[in-house]
Amino acid sequence: MAHTGVLRPGFIQLRVLDMPAAVEHYTKRVGLHQVTEGKDGRVYLKSADEFDHHSIVLRRAESAGVDMMAFKVRDDSDLDMFEKRIAEYGIAVDHKAASDVDLVREAHQSRITVDHVAAGEQPGLGRRIGFTVPSGHRIELYAHADQSDPKPRTLNPDIWELEPHGMCARRFDHALFYGPNLEEVLNFFTTVLDFKCAERINLPDGTLAIWLTCGMKAHDIAFVKHPEPGKLHHVSFDLENWQSVGNAADIIARYDISIDIGPTRHGITRGQTIYFFDPSGNRNEVFAGGYTYYPDNPTRIWDETQIGKSIFYYERVLNEAFLSVVT
Amino acid sequence: MAHTGVLRPGFIQLRVLDMPAAVEHYTKRVGLHQVTEGKDGRVYLKSADEFDHHSIVLRRAESAGVDMMAFKVRDDSDLDMFEKRIAEYGIAVDHKAASDVDLVREAHQSRITVDHVAAGEQPGLGRRIGFTVPSGHRIELYAHADQSDPKPRTLNPDIWELEPHGMCARRFDHALFYGPNLEEVLNFFTTVLDFKCAERINLPDGTLAIWLTCGMKAHDIAFVKHPEPGKLHHVSFDLENWQSVGNAADIIARYDISIDIGPTRHGITRGQTIYFFDPSGNRNEVFAGGYTYYPDNPTRIWDETQIGKSIFYYERVLNEAFLSVVT
Amino acid sequence: MAHTGVLRPGFIQLRVLDMPAAVEHYTKRVGLHQVTEGKDGRVYLKSADEFDHHSIVLRRAESAGVDMMAFKVRDDSDLDMFEKRIAEYGIAVDHKAASDVDLVREAHQSRITVDHVAAGEQPGLGRRIGFTVPSGHRIELYAHADQSDPKPRTLNPDIWELEPHGMCARRFDHALFYGPNLEEVLNFFTTVLDFKCAERINLPDGTLAIWLTCGMKAHDIAFVKHPEPGKLHHVSFDLENWQSVGNAADIIARYDISIDIGPTRHGITRGQTIYFFDPSGNRNEVFAGGYTYYPDNPTRIWDETQIGKSIFYYERVLNEAFLSVVT
Amino acid sequence: MAHTGVLRPGFIQLRVLDMPAAVEHYTKRVGLHQVTEGKDGRVYLKSADEFDHHSIVLRRAESAGVDMMAFKVRDDSDLDMFEKRIAEYGIAVDHKAASDVDLVREAHQSRITVDHVAAGEQPGLGRRIGFTVPSGHRIELYAHADQSDPKPRTLNPDIWELEPHGMCARRFDHALFYGPNLEEVLNFFTTVLDFKCAERINLPDGTLAIWLTCGMKAHDIAFVKHPEPGKLHHVSFDLENWQSVGNAADIIARYDISIDIGPTRHGITRGQTIYFFDPSGNRNEVFAGGYTYYPDNPTRIWDETQIGKSIFYYERVLNEAFLSVVT
Repeated sequence: MAHTGVLRPGFIQLRVLDMPAAVEHYTKRVGLHQVTEGKDGRVYLKSADEFDHHSIVLRRAESAGVDMMAFKVRDDSDLDMFEKRIAEYGIAVDHKAASDVDLVREAHQSRITVDHVAAGEQPGLGRRIGFTVPSGHRIELYAHADQSDPKPRTLNPDIWELEPHGMCARRFDHALFYGPNLEEVLNFFTTVLDFKCAERINLPDGTLAIWLTCGMKAHDIAFVKHPEPGKLHHVSFDLENWQSVGNAADIIARYDISIDIGPTRHGITRGQTIYFFDPSGNRNEVFAGGYTYYPDNPTRIWDETQIGKSIFYYERVLNEAFLSVVT
Repeated sequence: MAHTGVLRPGFIQLRVLDMPAAVEHYTKRVGLHQVTEGKDGRVYLKSADEFDHHSIVLRRAESAGVDMMAFKVRDDSDLDMFEKRIAEYGIAVDHKAASDVDLVREAHQSRITVDHVAAGEQPGLGRRIGFTVPSGHRIELYAHADQSDPKPRTLNPDIWELEPHGMCARRFDHALFYGPNLEEVLNFFTTVLDFKCAERINLPDGTLAIWLTCGMKAHDIAFVKHPEPGKLHHVSFDLENWQSVGNAADIIARYDISIDIGPTRHGITRGQTIYFFDPSGNRNEVFAGGYTYYPDNPTRIWDETQIGKSIFYYERVLNEAFLSVVT
Repeated sequence: MAHTGVLRPGFIQLRVLDMPAAVEHYTKRVGLHQVTEGKDGRVYLKSADEFDHHSIVLRRAESAGVDMMAFKVRDDSDLDMFEKRIAEYGIAVDHKAASDVDLVREAHQSRITVDHVAAGEQPGLGRRIGFTVPSGHRIELYAHADQSDPKPRTLNPDIWELEPHGMCARRFDHALFYGPNLEEVLNFFTTVLDFKCAERINLPDGTLAIWLTCGMKAHDIAFVKHPEPGKLHHVSFDLENWQSVGNAADIIARYDISIDIGPTRHGITRGQTIYFFDPSGNRNEVFAGGYTYYPDNPTRIWDETQIGKSIFYYERVLNEAFLSVVT
Repeated sequence: MAHTGVLRPGFIQLRVLDMPAAVEHYTKRVGLHQVTEGKDGRVYLKSADEFDHHSIVLRRAESAGVDMMAFKVRDDSDLDMFEKRIAEYGIAVDHKAASDVDLVREAHQSRITVDHVAAGEQPGLGRRIGFTVPSGHRIELYAHADQSDPKPRTLNPDIWELEPHGMCARRFDHALFYGPNLEEVLNFFTTVLDFKCAERINLPDGTLAIWLTCGMKAHDIAFVKHPEPGKLHHVSFDLENWQSVGNAADIIARYDISIDIGPTRHGITRGQTIYFFDPSGNRNEVFAGGYTYYPDNPTRIWDETQIGKSIFYYERVLNEAFLSVVT
């Protein structure tokens, strides 16, 4: 028992327009390492502090955005268990919303279908199961990852083997997705995948946003209500502390990386943060802090009176880009 | 599923020689708040960032040390489940070790007996089950705690309501105990209570120390081999970062609080730390950092060649007091 | 020799609309201490880390803003020396600029007149000389200040005697003034008062801003070109580091203090900073860092291509308020 | 006027046993850059944040230690002025102390003799004057240094051009020397070179140590009483903050660099510090913080009751090595 089922965000596959520029950005600036390049040209990256084979996959494409986000589960048998649960799960579709916006139609299905991805489709990973949640995002689960270098040593380990560089990202931490049907997404993640809702924004006309966790972090995945399905707001990397966020800001300014907002703080999760864009326009976040969450903690709720403070605790207003710029 | 069973360290009950001095130390210096004082004179403390009723219990006594450490479990039914598991668990006693040192005899029992503590024995807590592990320490489990003030708000919560003060301890985080029979303790915590061993020190003549976790922290409880059972090495509080550890050091020096060692860092857990003593001689730690642990992470192992670095990463030698001064 | 003449910013006298609100703001939030209240109702404040009697003077008035900024000189004889220098100094008035904007007329005088303020006009201070520089700001010089409590101890001093509180301001550090005739101001401060120009913004149509230092800090006083004379952009307090700036941001948000911008960084001086407003609308800055300046260092120059980065290094654009909101 | 005469520590020339090991240490670990190597094999180093040609000179020799420390003065005419002052300065020799310890004899001279070093003896530097102070240390003064790369830009300068690396030393900051005749040294530095004494340790049998400044830093050079003349206790580099000191500690441990003590804090100057040794055994310090000193500040005095806290504020005792290990 203890920590079972979905353990953590495992990897995210991002679409980038210019692969060399993307690799330079994520390795030299964000501070990751390239593990390998696949035969199909996908590039696999990780932090030196992660054991698993990779946590970021870059795929060259004509438009930026996210292909899928995958979670690692504890045991191979969890894959069968979750497949069964998903098959038994029926989704009540919000047809009214769908009728409003053509683009969301595909995201609405009364059942969520699971498909299978064979071991080795990505180097170093075992078999995966995949499905699309009602917000239009593809989620995958897998139980096995080879370890790859660089990784932490396990015999007499130093704090680090390779000097951290760039923004010193310690791990792919979470992603924030934009899409419709948040109530359905919330129901699915909490009842089928055993996530908890750590925080949410409740507006008079419904749920604006949800922060979901499968462990003790304040969030592993989050969603904001948006008419168009399957959109990426940001992919986020964990830093050590506020000093690291300041260092990231220095790097962003020094190399004239496109900035969104920050350094600032989220009221939600309390994370200290800065948002910027990779060369393809995918929003990145590096952040530090955030409280420790336990499953017996109450869900923190924000209402329309403090929506600015919930997202940007210091500015206390949402900037235009936060609600509109996605890939 | 997900995070089930034992959730986290709930509280620790410490024996102190001078109650007013102890309360001043833990509230004004460490940064806790007094919740209430019981009719029997015990004083209940907590951090303003903890929801549950209390996390530190101070009991006036003639000798310093620890009465028990209690863990919160997720559901009341977990108490029955763990009681059954413990009853079914038989311990192979290391008679040789026991014959060497008289003091450890009482700690050796072929069975671990569970007893019950009624709801309300401590204010705000539900029923508890208790038992003594082979190192001679009493461990308790409970499923219910009332919330008490101060605590985080759940509607539009600010980062904090009350300005943090003193060392700004954010929670009772873990304890390190000294006692015999570490292999038995390890077996019990991992097989019965579903803990994982994040790190250990293996010497040629056996296990010197183990770091155990029930969640995603690098440790929730730890044990060092010691002939005398039931001893407390330190009770530890979580701080925000290395800057906070420095601030704690300033406070320790400014108020001439007895210091043990630090600021320094542990190789084990990577925690940034400082050790000092409460007015009764109980060792305290305030620390920050430490990696995020997942149950699929390998156990990090330290051997006799790097034992200094494992405990005090900067000094690279154990100080005399670390191995000998306990309460 | 060595560090002679003007030593440092000594105090600034601010006009506030509501004295109790102002005192609460500067003591509880910014972290100063009240030293005394004068018979005329002026309130005198200081940081516990300053030796001199006070560094902030609050005067109740119908409009916010600055009455004067005073610098401490090393010796009483310096007052006579500077009075003589000022008397000998003739200012070439920029009549064209004056004809453009009526408001600046009063600031243009072919001579700067020195007047005298008797010892004791402010409690704890010796005699002062005062004069108005071409930007329309009154500057004063004085050589003597009594020490007042709280102050650093000089025998076996602890890091601090009183635990720092609020934003933990360590000293009144500098002010930024808005007014016309910057070239004249620059000439006066550098040739008469022996200041150095550490940085400046040169636009195609002339000097936009100057940062002046009388010691080894990157700035002790600064000016931005503005048609209206005698305006205050901000009064600034020194903090320990970026972590302190983050803590200040938490306090600003927690108590809903009006924020201008930040946490961010200046390209000019490299200071890490946050701007906010006191209850009367006077802009405050708390900042940390900034390079050490020596008088043989070159003046750093910014041009129109990087004006955003010069002021707000992370945002890389000036916000509207920076150039327009002054008191 | 303002800041005149001696501006700051300019460079220090260290003797090292193994040049490649020393260069690797000071460039890769401490974070300096190599500027050039002289024809005589001396290697010249600097921080990327220093304008002047170099600040560290390494000379291969059979024994470690310091050849000389040089200060930059503001104007070439200052060299003549100081030479004249030194010639007029007569030192009262403490013959009793000299009779006690043979080694100090050479350091005792009734007059301090000035010699001249031609421009270009070190690349990029103008003419220097040199002399030996009563503690047996050679001090030099010079007025001119070429600038060298890397250095801060002066047009639209970024926070840094080259990403800081290793311990991120920002400048050669000061040195602590061990030798006899501290009262004479104090008199010479304050009356001839216009230094101020920011702090001192006064024991019942005389002055143990003095901290001297020529500007606004708490110290530019310091001396501890020691029978043997001309010894180096440590050469010190400035870091940004306590976080940087922690990062330096990580580097020291990771690369198994010989550590002396720290991270800790000095009561004197308040500097946050760590001491370690270069491969030749010369002690290094990297430190952050320390108060801003003004020449009207009182000298802080420590007596025998708090001598431990004065040096190591957290430990509150001197370690053996502090008083005995010098090069």
